[in-house]
Amino acid sequence: MKMGIIGYGYWGPNIVRNFMQTQKVEVTCVCDLNNEALKQAKIHYPQLTYTNDYLEIINAPQIDAVAIVTPVFTHYKLAKEALTNNKHIFIEKPFTSTVQQAEELIELAEKKGLIIMIDHTFLFTGAVTKIKELINIGALGELYYYDSTRVNLGLFQHDVNVIWDLAPHDFSIMNYIIEEKPKAIAAHGTSHFKKDLEDIAYITVYFSNNLIAHFNVNWISPVKLRSTFIGGNKKMLIWNDLEFDEKIKIYDKGLDLNTKEGIYEHLVSYRSGNMFSPKVEHKEALKVEAEYFTECIYKGTKPFNNGHTGLEIVKMLCACNYSLQNNGMMVEL
Amino acid sequence: MKMGIIGYGYWGPNIVRNFMQTQKVEVTCVCDLNNEALKQAKIHYPQLTYTNDYLEIINAPQIDAVAIVTPVFTHYKLAKEALTNNKHIFIEKPFTSTVQQAEELIELAEKKGLIIMIDHTFLFTGAVTKIKELINIGALGELYYYDSTRVNLGLFQHDVNVIWDLAPHDFSIMNYIIEEKPKAIAAHGTSHFKKDLEDIAYITVYFSNNLIAHFNVNWISPVKLRSTFIGGNKKMLIWNDLEFDEKIKIYDKGLDLNTKEGIYEHLVSYRSGNMFSPKVEHKEALKVEAEYFTECIYKGTKPFNNGHTGLEIVKMLCACNYSLQNNGMMVEL
Amino acid sequence: MKMGIIGYGYWGPNIVRNFMQTQKVEVTCVCDLNNEALKQAKIHYPQLTYTNDYLEIINAPQIDAVAIVTPVFTHYKLAKEALTNNKHIFIEKPFTSTVQQAEELIELAEKKGLIIMIDHTFLFTGAVTKIKELINIGALGELYYYDSTRVNLGLFQHDVNVIWDLAPHDFSIMNYIIEEKPKAIAAHGTSHFKKDLEDIAYITVYFSNNLIAHFNVNWISPVKLRSTFIGGNKKMLIWNDLEFDEKIKIYDKGLDLNTKEGIYEHLVSYRSGNMFSPKVEHKEALKVEAEYFTECIYKGTKPFNNGHTGLEIVKMLCACNYSLQNNGMMVEL
Amino acid sequence: MKMGIIGYGYWGPNIVRNFMQTQKVEVTCVCDLNNEALKQAKIHYPQLTYTNDYLEIINAPQIDAVAIVTPVFTHYKLAKEALTNNKHIFIEKPFTSTVQQAEELIELAEKKGLIIMIDHTFLFTGAVTKIKELINIGALGELYYYDSTRVNLGLFQHDVNVIWDLAPHDFSIMNYIIEEKPKAIAAHGTSHFKKDLEDIAYITVYFSNNLIAHFNVNWISPVKLRSTFIGGNKKMLIWNDLEFDEKIKIYDKGLDLNTKEGIYEHLVSYRSGNMFSPKVEHKEALKVEAEYFTECIYKGTKPFNNGHTGLEIVKMLCACNYSLQNNGMMVEL
Repeated sequence: MKMGIIGYGYWGPNIVRNFMQTQKVEVTCVCDLNNEALKQAKIHYPQLTYTNDYLEIINAPQIDAVAIVTPVFTHYKLAKEALTNNKHIFIEKPFTSTVQQAEELIELAEKKGLIIMIDHTFLFTGAVTKIKELINIGALGELYYYDSTRVNLGLFQHDVNVIWDLAPHDFSIMNYIIEEKPKAIAAHGTSHFKKDLEDIAYITVYFSNNLIAHFNVNWISPVKLRSTFIGGNKKMLIWNDLEFDEKIKIYDKGLDLNTKEGIYEHLVSYRSGNMFSPKVEHKEALKVEAEYFTECIYKGTKPFNNGHTGLEIVKMLCACNYSLQNNGMMVEL
Repeated sequence: MKMGIIGYGYWGPNIVRNFMQTQKVEVTCVCDLNNEALKQAKIHYPQLTYTNDYLEIINAPQIDAVAIVTPVFTHYKLAKEALTNNKHIFIEKPFTSTVQQAEELIELAEKKGLIIMIDHTFLFTGAVTKIKELINIGALGELYYYDSTRVNLGLFQHDVNVIWDLAPHDFSIMNYIIEEKPKAIAAHGTSHFKKDLEDIAYITVYFSNNLIAHFNVNWISPVKLRSTFIGGNKKMLIWNDLEFDEKIKIYDKGLDLNTKEGIYEHLVSYRSGNMFSPKVEHKEALKVEAEYFTECIYKGTKPFNNGHTGLEIVKMLCACNYSLQNNGMMVEL
Repeated sequence: MKMGIIGYGYWGPNIVRNFMQTQKVEVTCVCDLNNEALKQAKIHYPQLTYTNDYLEIINAPQIDAVAIVTPVFTHYKLAKEALTNNKHIFIEKPFTSTVQQAEELIELAEKKGLIIMIDHTFLFTGAVTKIKELINIGALGELYYYDSTRVNLGLFQHDVNVIWDLAPHDFSIMNYIIEEKPKAIAAHGTSHFKKDLEDIAYITVYFSNNLIAHFNVNWISPVKLRSTFIGGNKKMLIWNDLEFDEKIKIYDKGLDLNTKEGIYEHLVSYRSGNMFSPKVEHKEALKVEAEYFTECIYKGTKPFNNGHTGLEIVKMLCACNYSLQNNGMMVEL
Repeated sequence: MKMGIIGYGYWGPNIVRNFMQTQKVEVTCVCDLNNEALKQAKIHYPQLTYTNDYLEIINAPQIDAVAIVTPVFTHYKLAKEALTNNKHIFIEKPFTSTVQQAEELIELAEKKGLIIMIDHTFLFTGAVTKIKELINIGALGELYYYDSTRVNLGLFQHDVNVIWDLAPHDFSIMNYIIEEKPKAIAAHGTSHFKKDLEDIAYITVYFSNNLIAHFNVNWISPVKLRSTFIGGNKKMLIWNDLEFDEKIKIYDKGLDLNTKEGIYEHLVSYRSGNMFSPKVEHKEALKVEAEYFTECIYKGTKPFNNGHTGLEIVKMLCACNYSLQNNGMMVEL
């Protein structure tokens, strides 16, 4: 199986490196408009061909799959042409700029029998894999909340706001580990540097039961935080992705409703017990994902991070923007 | 100056202890409906008189000031009777249950020449004093955001939601250190234990410039967090109230707009420099506040944490509830 | 049972408070040379009698037990007189200034059928109780090392060096949880403020197997640390006493000898697994200890923190001083 | 300038990578006995020549300098042959296995006018550079202590104990930033896996004034720690090398002797003030060191991390082993 890679900016080098280390895949060509970037790539991989013209990849009959690692506003056009030319696609998140674009690509891929994989890399980390396992076996019980913070200083994007930049990670993780579908979304935020490009935002997601989710995303924080609190009626979990060794902590803590209730009793009583931090595999998520993409193509199986998965995220992102433009109005999904 | 204290529940013992240590004040009587609480008090302070009837305090001609340390729904009635009986009042936050009640009490106190002090204790901590100092001298520059997290396991209240329980701390601190007035507020949240008593909530506050504030309050978090991020165009500050020694950190970090902007340049460039953690006084805030209350009465000066201060908080809290009841609608203040 | 307390300095107030809350004990008299200290005590406990003369306690026929909460150089004289006057004694650590003094007091108490309890308060904390439990069931396996750090800024003592001030805590804990007896000890240190009064010291303890223990004690550290690492061949434990919620962490980590060994293989292979933090009871250790002292006297049982326990610590402390005076020479115990 | 590199094990790949990125140096040949290692190297750098025979490097007339990145027991032989063949040498720490070997190599290099640089990489980190700056300007005042902890799980060495593996880092840093010469050294430790190969050790270093240094090195710790406390009479510094952003903290804390001293006064009084964390450059230390080596050769200047620097460390390491073999006896340096 042969592969071409379009885009060698911030993330492209990781894509190239990982697909080159994947067995049964041969990376043949890398495309970018920036010659400086291609020059750097050539130093590392002198054996590949390089081009400024993506059509050299998309039209190449021997290429089976294309990785699209470009800004989101180019996704639709590139993906459509790739699919039309019978290439499987591995595409950066977020999938597309609009819901309609995503739906059209999904339909095209299905008609052609091609695979779309959205690069939601976090789903392949040891931490998310472990959290999904724990949620699946009911370790936390019924879920109360999902509260995520992803803040740091930069990197500012030119074309999308902080929600489109950072929240796809968290939306994809939440959708992956929580079975219920989000019902409504509201977003607040503001921009300090470029009009209509929010650099701080707060998103609330409602579900049909009383599960609530919240996302704090910020490009102008003095320190980096990446934490997710997941509260359930049995246990509570904190995932701190910046910890090296103890990324996940599960707390045997919670609340029980008091049977007798008076003005001097607490409404609830507290449970407090042990804490447990499971071992989390340290592996490069993108390597696992590249192998999974390859396997899906060889076996003809549909990946779980497919076009529909990506479409759900795009719906949420579009709803966020709509909410931002309408005073934080709650938007049905 | 003689003082009576109504309410000896969770916070009352601290009020009694601190006013008893304040010079020029004599605590004479403590009132609570709960005899068990009074019994405990008597062990510590056998010299005081105790009662179940608050009128014994409010009607006592020798008493000059009354501390009202009871649930919020009782505040208006107790405060009104106290003021009517010519007592200065020191009253728990939040001031009242409604805006109208607060306005009525303020008017009554002003007519009578009496002092109302709202017990926003945090305003008397070494940390908040230091932050106000720093903001006042412009150390952070123009403010971008104020982002607060105050979560822990419990204590559930019977009569108010998590916003009315926890957010008054943060609203009062924000109003104290930021000169601009909040313009609009939106609140999201949900309840898991008692209908219409939210145990998790997220509040966003808008100002007329592009300063934005956000408050994460949660009664069902497995760990306790009390942190506030304040971002400015010059510097950024993090206040972690759970740190013993380094509560405040000021980061010489920030963003500058790039003059030239292209698809391959970042929109902004980053500044990164030293970090500085100023010494913060370790003193009991309530002790300082009790002395300040006493001084205000002796000197006849109006405290900065007066009825109007309390009213602003009540307005914000009422707006939060209105927003919660209307799908997180943004409410003008 | 009636009790007198000699010494109301830094630690005395805690002793008085806890014994006053202990059932079946009546504190009757408190003695200190410092009238200012007694004045403070009188405010809290007006019902007690106060004196500057310890003989008023030691000679009082109605008093059954005496707590000796004075500097160590006074212990022998006070304890001897108390035992001679048929009082059980509860005495501060370290027990005595010399081995001979401790042996004489033990013999005297045994002859008289009196109880000596050394106030090694840490043995009654939830954390130490839990660690002993874990070691007893063999959770860590065969022990490799015990490595303790106890440093902070102050408090300087007048009469003893940092080892006599801080190490008794750690020696008593180690002796309590480790069955093997220390075989030899070496101490290094230096003084910066008062000649021959070391303010920094490092102590190494050898056992007959290859278990090794080390103690880092320091009065002039900018931050406070209280951590103990205990390594075993099955698991490893870290006790961080400054953590509120996760004081003890047990790591499923270790080393196994490689069977095949070459210049390119590692000598050992690494095991890495889950981490577990057991719930630790939050209770005031001194309260538990005061109850235990009372129970021992009523039941006539010998406490585990008895004179012999105290003597072992004194032996180690004296050996440390001898080592310090002889260039860190290793001293047999 | 042409360079050959002998040894492509754990550290060798970093040496090759950095010298390849250094201007005015051409790496021509890499030698290792392990063909698997060479195969890996070839994938990254197909343009270089590879050999199992170090003589191909040492005898090559066109090669100007040799990097010796092999186990310490081979250093003397390889370095001697390289110097004899007129090569400058860049050699791993520790320099040699014995003091005599180091002295002989220094003499040989001086006779030949060749440069010896010992790879004490840490001396080129942003953190050590900043600490040296601070010490040089007297920011800490007169030094009281230097207390270092460097522990983790692994990596076990075959031929040297934990002191020879880890302490060279800390000895070289201490010698670099502290002008006074160590006067005596004592080491304690034990081995659990291989006889006479200590895996835990504690080292104390004495100076002629009352400055004391201590080193805690451990291969079998469940967590990784890399911290150094440096106490002075003006300020105190903590360097935590595992922190990303705040590696160095300087505390405005300390002690002052009390003028009046009594049984009830403290011997000293405490100062407590601000904390300051200077920005530390994030740069790859080895890259800076490789450029420095190149510059020294071009300019003919003697590096500060020269043979004499390395010899001092070897003296300390040999003294540690002698102390370990003699019950922790203090050994004069």
